[in-house]
Amino acid sequence: MNLWHITEETFEPTLKRIHSNETVFTIGNGYFGTRGTYEEGYPRDNAATLLFGVFDDIPVAREELANTPDWIPIKLFVNRERFRLDRGQILAYQRSLDMQQGLLRRTVTWRSDQGIRLRLDTERFASLADEHVGAIRYTVTIEETPDNQPCDISIWSGISLAEGNYDVMHWESVDQRSEGDISWFHTETKKTLVQLVQSMCFLSDTPEFERMMLDSDIAPSIRYNGKLAPGETFTADKIVVMYTSRDVHNPREKSIAHLQKLLDSASGHYRQVYNELLARNQEAWRTFWEIADVVIEGDERAQRGMRFNIYQLRINVSDHDYRYSVAAKGLTGFGYRGHVFHDTEVFMLPFYTFVMPKVARNLLLYRYHLLDAARRKAASNGYEGAQYPWESTLNGEETTPVSIVHPETGEVVPVLNGFIELHITASIAYAVWQYWQITGDDAFLRDYGAEILLSTATFWASRVEKNEETNQYEINDVIGPDEWHEHVDNNAFTNYMASKNILYALDALRWLALNAPEKERELGEKLRLTNQRISYWLDVAQHMRVPQVRQSGLFEQFDGFFQLEPLDQSKFKGRRDSFQGILGVEAVQKYRIIKQADVLMLLTLQRDQFDERTKRVNWDYYYPITDHDYGSSLTPALHVVLACELAYLEEAYKLFMKGAMVDIENLRGNTPEGIHAACAGAVWQAAIFGAAGLQISDEHKVITEPHWLNNWSRLAFSVYYKGKLHRFDLRREQQ
Amino acid sequence: MNLWHITEETFEPTLKRIHSNETVFTIGNGYFGTRGTYEEGYPRDNAATLLFGVFDDIPVAREELANTPDWIPIKLFVNRERFRLDRGQILAYQRSLDMQQGLLRRTVTWRSDQGIRLRLDTERFASLADEHVGAIRYTVTIEETPDNQPCDISIWSGISLAEGNYDVMHWESVDQRSEGDISWFHTETKKTLVQLVQSMCFLSDTPEFERMMLDSDIAPSIRYNGKLAPGETFTADKIVVMYTSRDVHNPREKSIAHLQKLLDSASGHYRQVYNELLARNQEAWRTFWEIADVVIEGDERAQRGMRFNIYQLRINVSDHDYRYSVAAKGLTGFGYRGHVFHDTEVFMLPFYTFVMPKVARNLLLYRYHLLDAARRKAASNGYEGAQYPWESTLNGEETTPVSIVHPETGEVVPVLNGFIELHITASIAYAVWQYWQITGDDAFLRDYGAEILLSTATFWASRVEKNEETNQYEINDVIGPDEWHEHVDNNAFTNYMASKNILYALDALRWLALNAPEKERELGEKLRLTNQRISYWLDVAQHMRVPQVRQSGLFEQFDGFFQLEPLDQSKFKGRRDSFQGILGVEAVQKYRIIKQADVLMLLTLQRDQFDERTKRVNWDYYYPITDHDYGSSLTPALHVVLACELAYLEEAYKLFMKGAMVDIENLRGNTPEGIHAACAGAVWQAAIFGAAGLQISDEHKVITEPHWLNNWSRLAFSVYYKGKLHRFDLRREQQ
Repeated sequence: MNLWHITEETFEPTLKRIHSNETVFTIGNGYFGTRGTYEEGYPRDNAATLLFGVFDDIPVAREELANTPDWIPIKLFVNRERFRLDRGQILAYQRSLDMQQGLLRRTVTWRSDQGIRLRLDTERFASLADEHVGAIRYTVTIEETPDNQPCDISIWSGISLAEGNYDVMHWESVDQRSEGDISWFHTETKKTLVQLVQSMCFLSDTPEFERMMLDSDIAPSIRYNGKLAPGETFTADKIVVMYTSRDVHNPREKSIAHLQKLLDSASGHYRQVYNELLARNQEAWRTFWEIADVVIEGDERAQRGMRFNIYQLRINVSDHDYRYSVAAKGLTGFGYRGHVFHDTEVFMLPFYTFVMPKVARNLLLYRYHLLDAARRKAASNGYEGAQYPWESTLNGEETTPVSIVHPETGEVVPVLNGFIELHITASIAYAVWQYWQITGDDAFLRDYGAEILLSTATFWASRVEKNEETNQYEINDVIGPDEWHEHVDNNAFTNYMASKNILYALDALRWLALNAPEKERELGEKLRLTNQRISYWLDVAQHMRVPQVRQSGLFEQFDGFFQLEPLDQSKFKGRRDSFQGILGVEAVQKYRIIKQADVLMLLTLQRDQFDERTKRVNWDYYYPITDHDYGSSLTPALHVVLACELAYLEEAYKLFMKGAMVDIENLRGNTPEGIHAACAGAVWQAAIFGAAGLQISDEHKVITEPHWLNNWSRLAFSVYYKGKLHRFDLRREQQ
Repeated sequence: MNLWHITEETFEPTLKRIHSNETVFTIGNGYFGTRGTYEEGYPRDNAATLLFGVFDDIPVAREELANTPDWIPIKLFVNRERFRLDRGQILAYQRSLDMQQGLLRRTVTWRSDQGIRLRLDTERFASLADEHVGAIRYTVTIEETPDNQPCDISIWSGISLAEGNYDVMHWESVDQRSEGDISWFHTETKKTLVQLVQSMCFLSDTPEFERMMLDSDIAPSIRYNGKLAPGETFTADKIVVMYTSRDVHNPREKSIAHLQKLLDSASGHYRQVYNELLARNQEAWRTFWEIADVVIEGDERAQRGMRFNIYQLRINVSDHDYRYSVAAKGLTGFGYRGHVFHDTEVFMLPFYTFVMPKVARNLLLYRYHLLDAARRKAASNGYEGAQYPWESTLNGEETTPVSIVHPETGEVVPVLNGFIELHITASIAYAVWQYWQITGDDAFLRDYGAEILLSTATFWASRVEKNEETNQYEINDVIGPDEWHEHVDNNAFTNYMASKNILYALDALRWLALNAPEKERELGEKLRLTNQRISYWLDVAQHMRVPQVRQSGLFEQFDGFFQLEPLDQSKFKGRRDSFQGILGVEAVQKYRIIKQADVLMLLTLQRDQFDERTKRVNWDYYYPITDHDYGSSLTPALHVVLACELAYLEEAYKLFMKGAMVDIENLRGNTPEGIHAACAGAVWQAAIFGAAGLQISDEHKVITEPHWLNNWSRLAFSVYYKGKLHRFDLRREQQ
């Protein structure tokens, strides 16, 4: 089997399977993502095209990525009978995502109720070389008719307004028209008034087929009518060019001109348009994989899973737009509404920093541009500096819903994360710091990064409270990464990361003093960095309370965690829900059971700060009380780094595969709502920091210390360090 | 001007005006209502067709009438240019709702940007004779072309899936196909799985126009292409037949067969289909108005307003389906989501009881069938008997949202009405009683009504608390009709109506004993009506606390109302919001300012129980402290009855017109969300009980005592009393 392909060999018309594979078979290029719905459409499919940073308003959760009019539909009628896989008979079926080239292909042999046998071949891509362009090649071959006579073929290709985020529609028709080969459709979001123009052509050189342009402001379309005898083939290429008012001032003119230019370049050779787009797309993907691929030999499933996660890290981020970041579900589904969490900085950023540093820079620039909003959030809570929102979209306001409606009881359940889950502010500082360390991008630190570090340090210094008895600084009433315990005091992760945040800021300040004194003065004034304040920072960083048993090195997740009741997990064998789901939001707080890595995440992020003994004692304590199956999807793969270091390699492999296959195999049942982007980043970290043991040595060298999982025999990958590409090709020695 | 027409003389493309007149120009027949959107469609129009009792689930508010795929669209292209009134030039425009025949007509003369002048005539109706049928006649005449040459005409008629309740889509495409002249579209609601089939034809005998059936499961359509020279005309008739799985088991077969039968009956004479449907519709409306019309001479505005409200009372109720009732906004808009309130029983039922007694019976049957749900509601609150929900849909569960999200702040505001606004239970009993008194429908009382009266009486008897000090029964912690005061004790309206409810039940029981002893025994057992219970009821009814100043007869709206702070309304001159809106939900409770008739509603409903002095003292007290402009729309017209009795005729006329014109002139700014159905019922009561002074004499005669408002010179109407039609033709004597 091809190690670049995710392949489906049967059509299963269950909604669970259909929706899950819509997510898996998403194509995208960072400008847009289009879920893998079928061209012919099925009742209750969740067709979606989400554009990077194109939102519309909704109640409570503020805004969500607005599912655009669907550009995928192509409907085939054979002797007036509609082609549908849930009718007639499927004689052969294969659908395959070619990750190497960013192509989704399908081949079907189908017999209609009238007894016509046909073969359908479709191929689609979101051009990685020309991000406004989506393309589909649609080919029908009549293999057999009952009377051996030609049959009537009608093929309708359109853009449909009748789509929403599930049932919520976001776009209004503004205008529509067709001119020459092109039909354009101008729509706008209902609330945010983003203008979108989708220009479409549907080109065929199959002889004796009649084309009609069907103007409509509901579903503008282009139709071909003709006849095919057994053995004859019809092919048409659908090319769609999308521009929004976020890209350009005149999306209508731009979109039409862009498509017209593509048509002109082929000078009437219809197939040429698609062929050239395809070739350029393939070349762009080749360039990407040349750097980004991680080769795993000896384990085909792991290899494909690895590539799938890297593919997701590519298609869900723009390579130039710094006004938005990678959503929890990327552009692949409606889950979390396109909101951005700390998932980007903690889980995904290492991939971008080491493999696509320009993208990493943009993702941090996104946070830089949210600084004013973060300052307002801090101020509104009575603090100084910049406090980043737990969830954010475009303008940096807190977009965590203040409550959610329970889908079954209709009860309103308050959501506290937007108020007291603070650690994201330190995670962003950590990411800035890491980015600087790895890339050596001093200009970024000077112009943007330092201000983030200093402003977030200011926040923490104002957020802490000094305990005069212990002479320690405390951060009370928070939610740590383990979100099952709310209103906790001195979460080890939060407090340690906050003190690091302050230390990073102090380091940055020192660097500025030496290398950019102008900037140091400017920021010093702007942020009122008095000497008094600086020495206070140092005091806070040095005397931050981080609960830990001194003798053993065991951290206490938060004050009092050790006093919680132990949970006898064996009583819950065969459970199909998280412990929170089973016990309830209130009750679970009493128990020593956690949703996801918290202390262990700290030890992973700051792994160069702790010795093996500390890591092991904490692993042994926390690993067994973490809900790896139904807790957060974020962390199984993240655990791999520590597991490898501690040589728990069987466990490491199990965790790696849990992460790598989470979406391909819909392990958590929620892949229909979109892929797990943080998990994708964690899988990359698991392979590179865990299995390959990549680290920066004290001499600033990039070194590896492989831990061979399962039957892996080779591990090859590339990373940038300080602007230079390092290629690794690790091979397992014969034992 | 025609006294049967509501006419608009200009096209104003402001959304406020467009949305408001969409509501006003709704056509309907009780099976469905279709808002007055334009065939060509405009961005952000709110096209809607709502079917009586067809709901889909939504969060929090449980369910809402599900806006169906839009059957109205007909799009015209002239030399490829789209006909739109917001482009080109409007040379003449008139749109008119002919209430006499239930027809909406439009005539437009328009010049395109290319200089083609055309005249468009459209006419549509929802057949009152054949409730599954909607029809549009669409006529285009080319008056002038720049070169005097024929122009290309393309006319697209379709059904569009791309509609929602505002932005919430409720229907999924199931299947679609065209056969012969008919294109059918099968859809289903997303959650409740109601099946809907809309069969469409678009018939034209204009020569040399080519017809195409365009299959699509997004917007199936039928298109005509041809040429028209100056002076030539194209006409086509769109006929749509709708059936749902709530009507029949096989809506697809039924819908297609029904339309096919219409086509067959015309034996190929295309215009005949529409003409015959039109004639039958006109006849059905003639029959309706023969009984239902209220003629007001001497005041054209009042006459048209009167008829508009009667028109609404007809189009928003089924004349045979007792599984649903009249929603607060009928079938004309999305406001209140199609939920049913006490509006039906208190405001609208008198019209139906006196004019369409079969409909009144169905509306009460609806409540009868909700008895089990009402029993569950009572039981879940720890009470006996039947407690009706404040808002209900099909199954009788409480559908008042428990909270609403503030549209601006995003805050979650709790809604208490579903918990403590109790008086609806007594209103339903009151309506049953009135229906029986007026119609003499003993069979209804025996089979259904008595059980409602007894079950609701049981509720009240278990809900009261005896105050041992005063020896009175109290009903504490409620919301009365004036919803600005929450958690009040002993609301006079609630308590008086509750005691009446018990007395009605006792009377019904006595009647059963005499006339249907079998039924008496049956209900006695089922509802456990022991002698002890009956005598307790009597005690409760006789000793119910209804706060009132004995000397003056002034009721206190609830315990402590007189102690509230007076509000100096003069400080709020020129306000554009209700006092609650201005002061806030909490603050308004402190003041002696009320949203709507409460004590005065009691005196209106029970007007034969109180003398003129009592009415006057209460009017003088409560009338000035009621927010007539921005409080509830329910009551201005309802006040007319008392105002007439007390001979405050100028005030009465002002209030009558406030009610009669509330939607035609969008007086409250919320007509876009649908008409005010309760107000429509109140306007009828104002005319008949107020102006005409209709009452049933002690000798069971229907008598009138006219109070002539404004310049009214004649008042003619008909009512049924005990099965007999009484026609009144009152003429003002010359003064």
